[in-house]
Amino acid sequence: MIIILKDNADKRQLDALKRWVETQNVHVHQSEGAHQTILGLVGDTVRIDIDMIKQLEIVEDVRRIQEPFKSANRKFHPMDTVINVGGVPVGDGSLCIIAGPCSIESESQIMTVARSVKKSGASMLRGGAFKPRTSPYSFQGMRDEGIKLLLQAGKETGLPVVTEVMDLSQLDLFTDVDVIQVGARNMQNFELLKELGHCDKPILLKRGLSATYQELLMSAEYILANGNDNVILCERGVRTFENYTRNTLDISMIPAIKELSHLPVIIDPSHAAGMSRFVSPLSRAAVAAGTDGLIIEVHNDPARAKCDGPQSLTMEAFDSLTKELNKLHELIKASKIK
Amino acid sequence: MIIILKDNADKRQLDALKRWVETQNVHVHQSEGAHQTILGLVGDTVRIDIDMIKQLEIVEDVRRIQEPFKSANRKFHPMDTVINVGGVPVGDGSLCIIAGPCSIESESQIMTVARSVKKSGASMLRGGAFKPRTSPYSFQGMRDEGIKLLLQAGKETGLPVVTEVMDLSQLDLFTDVDVIQVGARNMQNFELLKELGHCDKPILLKRGLSATYQELLMSAEYILANGNDNVILCERGVRTFENYTRNTLDISMIPAIKELSHLPVIIDPSHAAGMSRFVSPLSRAAVAAGTDGLIIEVHNDPARAKCDGPQSLTMEAFDSLTKELNKLHELIKASKIK
Amino acid sequence: MIIILKDNADKRQLDALKRWVETQNVHVHQSEGAHQTILGLVGDTVRIDIDMIKQLEIVEDVRRIQEPFKSANRKFHPMDTVINVGGVPVGDGSLCIIAGPCSIESESQIMTVARSVKKSGASMLRGGAFKPRTSPYSFQGMRDEGIKLLLQAGKETGLPVVTEVMDLSQLDLFTDVDVIQVGARNMQNFELLKELGHCDKPILLKRGLSATYQELLMSAEYILANGNDNVILCERGVRTFENYTRNTLDISMIPAIKELSHLPVIIDPSHAAGMSRFVSPLSRAAVAAGTDGLIIEVHNDPARAKCDGPQSLTMEAFDSLTKELNKLHELIKASKIK
Amino acid sequence: MIIILKDNADKRQLDALKRWVETQNVHVHQSEGAHQTILGLVGDTVRIDIDMIKQLEIVEDVRRIQEPFKSANRKFHPMDTVINVGGVPVGDGSLCIIAGPCSIESESQIMTVARSVKKSGASMLRGGAFKPRTSPYSFQGMRDEGIKLLLQAGKETGLPVVTEVMDLSQLDLFTDVDVIQVGARNMQNFELLKELGHCDKPILLKRGLSATYQELLMSAEYILANGNDNVILCERGVRTFENYTRNTLDISMIPAIKELSHLPVIIDPSHAAGMSRFVSPLSRAAVAAGTDGLIIEVHNDPARAKCDGPQSLTMEAFDSLTKELNKLHELIKASKIK
Repeated sequence: MIIILKDNADKRQLDALKRWVETQNVHVHQSEGAHQTILGLVGDTVRIDIDMIKQLEIVEDVRRIQEPFKSANRKFHPMDTVINVGGVPVGDGSLCIIAGPCSIESESQIMTVARSVKKSGASMLRGGAFKPRTSPYSFQGMRDEGIKLLLQAGKETGLPVVTEVMDLSQLDLFTDVDVIQVGARNMQNFELLKELGHCDKPILLKRGLSATYQELLMSAEYILANGNDNVILCERGVRTFENYTRNTLDISMIPAIKELSHLPVIIDPSHAAGMSRFVSPLSRAAVAAGTDGLIIEVHNDPARAKCDGPQSLTMEAFDSLTKELNKLHELIKASKIK
Repeated sequence: MIIILKDNADKRQLDALKRWVETQNVHVHQSEGAHQTILGLVGDTVRIDIDMIKQLEIVEDVRRIQEPFKSANRKFHPMDTVINVGGVPVGDGSLCIIAGPCSIESESQIMTVARSVKKSGASMLRGGAFKPRTSPYSFQGMRDEGIKLLLQAGKETGLPVVTEVMDLSQLDLFTDVDVIQVGARNMQNFELLKELGHCDKPILLKRGLSATYQELLMSAEYILANGNDNVILCERGVRTFENYTRNTLDISMIPAIKELSHLPVIIDPSHAAGMSRFVSPLSRAAVAAGTDGLIIEVHNDPARAKCDGPQSLTMEAFDSLTKELNKLHELIKASKIK
Repeated sequence: MIIILKDNADKRQLDALKRWVETQNVHVHQSEGAHQTILGLVGDTVRIDIDMIKQLEIVEDVRRIQEPFKSANRKFHPMDTVINVGGVPVGDGSLCIIAGPCSIESESQIMTVARSVKKSGASMLRGGAFKPRTSPYSFQGMRDEGIKLLLQAGKETGLPVVTEVMDLSQLDLFTDVDVIQVGARNMQNFELLKELGHCDKPILLKRGLSATYQELLMSAEYILANGNDNVILCERGVRTFENYTRNTLDISMIPAIKELSHLPVIIDPSHAAGMSRFVSPLSRAAVAAGTDGLIIEVHNDPARAKCDGPQSLTMEAFDSLTKELNKLHELIKASKIK
Repeated sequence: MIIILKDNADKRQLDALKRWVETQNVHVHQSEGAHQTILGLVGDTVRIDIDMIKQLEIVEDVRRIQEPFKSANRKFHPMDTVINVGGVPVGDGSLCIIAGPCSIESESQIMTVARSVKKSGASMLRGGAFKPRTSPYSFQGMRDEGIKLLLQAGKETGLPVVTEVMDLSQLDLFTDVDVIQVGARNMQNFELLKELGHCDKPILLKRGLSATYQELLMSAEYILANGNDNVILCERGVRTFENYTRNTLDISMIPAIKELSHLPVIIDPSHAAGMSRFVSPLSRAAVAAGTDGLIIEVHNDPARAKCDGPQSLTMEAFDSLTKELNKLHELIKASKIK
């Protein structure tokens, strides 16, 4: 952490600041110039509140050098975290493909899709029971009933299941779910994150619509710091000025997370684009950039889907896409020497 | 709603679509050109799912003409909504100033600030008990204990109190609170919004960091549609590429909300800028642009604040700002003839 | 400037780096910690290329502490710059109102508007002769002929004139123009900026659609560093995700520029909103926030304007707005003690 | 184009509007509902000025249905445009790799890099002679001298050369250059675009930092409409709130441009990321998503580069990347059936 002092900072106040910093087990180095004095804080500054120091009368600005996350930081945990989801590894270099409908609509729908994606080679089954919808007039999901149908489909096909929690009060229903998803709109629902830190299930944490990598990792930190090491990060498009696609897929998040953190990172091309015809090129791009997995919306009848139909693949399209992605993944794996 | 058809759309499918639309009590007008056929849907299209239509094979694109919110829409409710908060009106043309510390830290702190802002002419007292902090290592608020202290300060000074709820499970603690605040990060916590729709307390709904006006109004709609008409909207800065200020205050939200909706709108200059020295110019701008109120952070000792110190005003600074803003408000009120 | 070194940085390379920095008349202070070594560079670092240092093998990151602009920096020039435009001061605490049509369309149009805005109290006349239009099929301006008409209108009314240059090759036509405007799309047309640095006319430099304050000031620096001290900065809305208004007016730019620089700053509410009905609230906000001036589009017949009609005020609307703004400006001036 | 009328629109004004539209060879269809009347304009609306209609008293809003670009539109030109650059095709399904230093620094530098990238299989040579730099204190390029050295390097290696023009007045120096690049900052320098429309050289048009796809295509339209059909579009990262990477590479631009236009599209991973270690994953992603080419910065000694060193690959790194990308391109080509 670097503290930039104002010109002619009061010496007594400066000494007090330096003494206080030393009590936090952080060393201070002072650099003095003609026009500017700066203090370099060296040590573990994660717990030092940058806002408190900024407010001091003698301080012009404060800059953080060290990242403010620790458990999620690759610097303190150089090895990749591999998460085991009911026997399916995520983060070990394999390509994990999660597939299923946006929302669970009926027993026959979820069963049809589950069997089909299983046959096509999906590693896990997704399906929404609680749906965060912008409009109160849109379909809100089958809720409890939906979770039951998803678990049944998972059991029959042998696929681990992933589904989204929208509120703390729903957690009891998630006991048998394999991966609990936290949606983009809940990425900074800190009460929920803390609670998820106390369970031992893998958490699929989606990046907020306008969250930085650092904010995403700070949200992961809430889960890790509370005792749950099993966090999978997910990029699903960010909000920009470009509206041709629903959101803008930030493909650079893959190499960025790989250097900042040891956690696995997957890509959701369906929500990013909001158009099924973009799912194939974006999925290929993600695999080529080194993603640990993909989460793709597949529907048995997209034109009649109750939610997000425009971005869902048909089961046939998903089948050929999976074949293509697996070939691509093999090539990428073989060519990367490092 | 306008449906743009693909070239050579199948006639049978087109007829089916038109018949279905008519069953929704919406009329269809077809315009045919050399290169393009479009359908105009006239009537109440709020409940028509745009995504479902987009997915149809014969459809190229769908555009909404009517706003997707109804209860919050000025078109269906031309008169301004005035909200009564323990005798303090919001939205009636007066200037409502809410003031207090970012977080409640101790009895003496909240009492000192409460008495001071009351004396300076504040209309309500704010103070955070549950604090959404980016870092799990930062101060998380006094929680239950904080709410008690805030209520006590409100009682003593006669100021209605405003404080933020972070999760459904905390709602019981808010029984005596006058205004429940929903923070920017929870603007699309739909489970929480639905529940707040079932209570009869005024809700202060903050705009999300990258939420459009329409999304903010759709979130208000969740509350209104569930029976609670008392929603105050709040702009607190949006996320842009400019990082000199913490966020970018979108001053245009004031006239925009005034034409789109009948709900009151207030401005939070403290969170927008993140710097106490910008609170004064931004507050003046908000009053000049016609805001119904302001929510301003005030602290008895900003340099020792546990949270957001850099953006808090001292009690003295707040006192002179209030005087200035009241004069400005009178002038604006007098000069606006329309 | 702070250089953060990689763990175990090669000592020989580090010494070389430190020696090189010292040759730039900048002092180096080294702070060593358990996990991190940082170098603090104290002195005039404006000419040190941050990119070159970032690339060194031993360097993890480089952060600038000092602003990279110098002539435009308030630190080295604490007094406000006041620019004299044909007798009209800009930046001296008065309110400068520039008004006129988006584009010059005919002699009678520009004369009618010029006489009207003069009578209403405008300080300068604006009018576009060269129009940057997104579409090649839109009206591109009257060009040479337009400049002539504008000069004539300026002469008759005694108003100094402001008009936009789009390319270096047009500069000869601007000999008698009082203020040369550089549009948002040309803010980083560095060849043009350099050339404008060699003339002695006031330059109105508009902020690019997604330019930071620092980038705007660096563009001003191109003009100042080449010898022309007369730069007026202008905010005209930035690009965000919100599309209800054409752009988002960044009102915070006023106090921000006031602390970063000594140059005057004005606001263009017409282009920011893109809607004439927002011009009044945004203008009031700008005056309340301390702007040095406004540039407002006024048209004798907005419904028949060849360009930007939707955002132009009628002459009558401008007349009452001016009166209101002058009253507001007096109040603001009187109440600001500091 | 859809015109949404205000409630109770004056019948006489409405008739006048309809008559005027018909004179533009566009048909009008009127749809009337209980609350809203809309006009559908069917025909060639490219030349209808949306702003003019918006301004009419009886009009609430206008929405464009048809894209405002025509020559660049795939609808009117379904076949892919293939551009021949000195024998090298761009847009025919092959992978075009353009490589070279950010700026030309000396004869030995450009010759060394040119020979090396040629050997590695690059299709063209890039190198900047005129450099748009944010700071007036940074290296501004070798200018005329740089162009000569680049042409010499192109001649010796047989590689066509690409270099950036910054201003109209420099065009004479570009007579022997194979591809003229328009930088992101000049994407809306319309005077320059018009002039480039009058030459017959291929133009590499980079997307502006916050330009939409439509704005990019409108800028291409300026060149096409003036007679030059040879435009190659280039994505180089857009500005977002995420600052870990210099800009955010918008990988979705590849499929988006492919459906909107017939023009080739290439990717610049070096400027997007601003970090050489991201060039490899982003290049792979671009190839997997179907790019027509890449433009990559390569330097013989990145640590001593005068400009953009941090994002340049070494010649060795470029050599292995090229091999990898070619293999990947073959696989993608083979697997794409459609």
